[in-house]
Amino acid sequence: MASYYSEIHLSSKCENDMIDITEDIQKIITKSKLTEGIACVFVPGSTGSLTTIEFEPGLQKDFPEALDKIAPKDKPYAHHETWHDDNGRSHVKASLMGPSITIPFHEKKLIHGTWQQVVFINFDTRPRDRKIIVQLIGEQ
Amino acid sequence: MASYYSEIHLSSKCENDMIDITEDIQKIITKSKLTEGIACVFVPGSTGSLTTIEFEPGLQKDFPEALDKIAPKDKPYAHHETWHDDNGRSHVKASLMGPSITIPFHEKKLIHGTWQQVVFINFDTRPRDRKIIVQLIGEQ
Amino acid sequence: MASYYSEIHLSSKCENDMIDITEDIQKIITKSKLTEGIACVFVPGSTGSLTTIEFEPGLQKDFPEALDKIAPKDKPYAHHETWHDDNGRSHVKASLMGPSITIPFHEKKLIHGTWQQVVFINFDTRPRDRKIIVQLIGEQ
Repeated sequence: MASYYSEIHLSSKCENDMIDITEDIQKIITKSKLTEGIACVFVPGSTGSLTTIEFEPGLQKDFPEALDKIAPKDKPYAHHETWHDDNGRSHVKASLMGPSITIPFHEKKLIHGTWQQVVFINFDTRPRDRKIIVQLIGEQ
Repeated sequence: MASYYSEIHLSSKCENDMIDITEDIQKIITKSKLTEGIACVFVPGSTGSLTTIEFEPGLQKDFPEALDKIAPKDKPYAHHETWHDDNGRSHVKASLMGPSITIPFHEKKLIHGTWQQVVFINFDTRPRDRKIIVQLIGEQ
Repeated sequence: MASYYSEIHLSSKCENDMIDITEDIQKIITKSKLTEGIACVFVPGSTGSLTTIEFEPGLQKDFPEALDKIAPKDKPYAHHETWHDDNGRSHVKASLMGPSITIPFHEKKLIHGTWQQVVFINFDTRPRDRKIIVQLIGEQ
């Protein structure tokens, strides 16, 4: 058994930008030479999240729209009084969704459905460069 | 340390069907002979999720009702335009809840509260046979 | 590779009480002498959750307010009919948020953003003493 630490670097263009990182995680597993284990994927920062979704244009609209009902743009946020900031909704959505996802790999392949991709979602109100941590734990 | 891969197979009968898999995970831990570690449980597919809940009939109604507010049945979904499908709401709920849960085990026992069970929830609009992946990482 | 089991004990004062446990997890990593790996943090019980958030007073108001929209106080819950209880909303919020979070550590440090803390949130309607499980898996 061993651990294998790696990072994915990406640029998110706008609020609700959704980026497919499935292949990035698979490449890290391949490079690690681990065969069986789990990938713990984590976003340092409090305005971005990870989940899985069928990565097609329709859901890239539907999903952020649904979250906007929970944390709408036009509501006053106490967070804005703390920092004179504008991204209270971004924090609420990121904390609801969570910053991490842990996914098994088996026979050197990250497990996921055919129509299921691992995505990073930027909830912040401006473009952001992001570093995503991938810590593998598994058998050589 | 070792990894131990296993699968749970189940049939979900209808939309919002909630199935208690706590004992299935415990049986896998027992069979693995691992004593200390974590169980990473994962649903391949983008219309089902895992969480914990007090598994009693009241919450089996309350919980899906609460999610219906976020992703209602009668709303138009852009996803339906992509595939002429009817399960946009299923995808939204599954991506919100997430496809995985990681739970520690200690002295050969899966950790959970007395009134806390691990459940799979089928958000799809039709019955589905499902395979759930359990990847254990732990000490022998 | 080794596992390292530990517990955090805390008292949550009221509904929606949010407690920063980042330093508690870091202390466990330091004590374990593990250098690279993951921390699986888990709440036994079905009315509390773990996530990350920028831990400042504004968001400590904004976040519970947003969840109240999904599981409002004044709605009837079928759960109350099962137990003549009053915390249906607490269960719904806890199952939505989930009972666990898995976070990588690297060079002996728990990974998190500067403005990102790991928090326990008590959704129950009364004060509760809580035990939180931390199971580390990593390299010595």
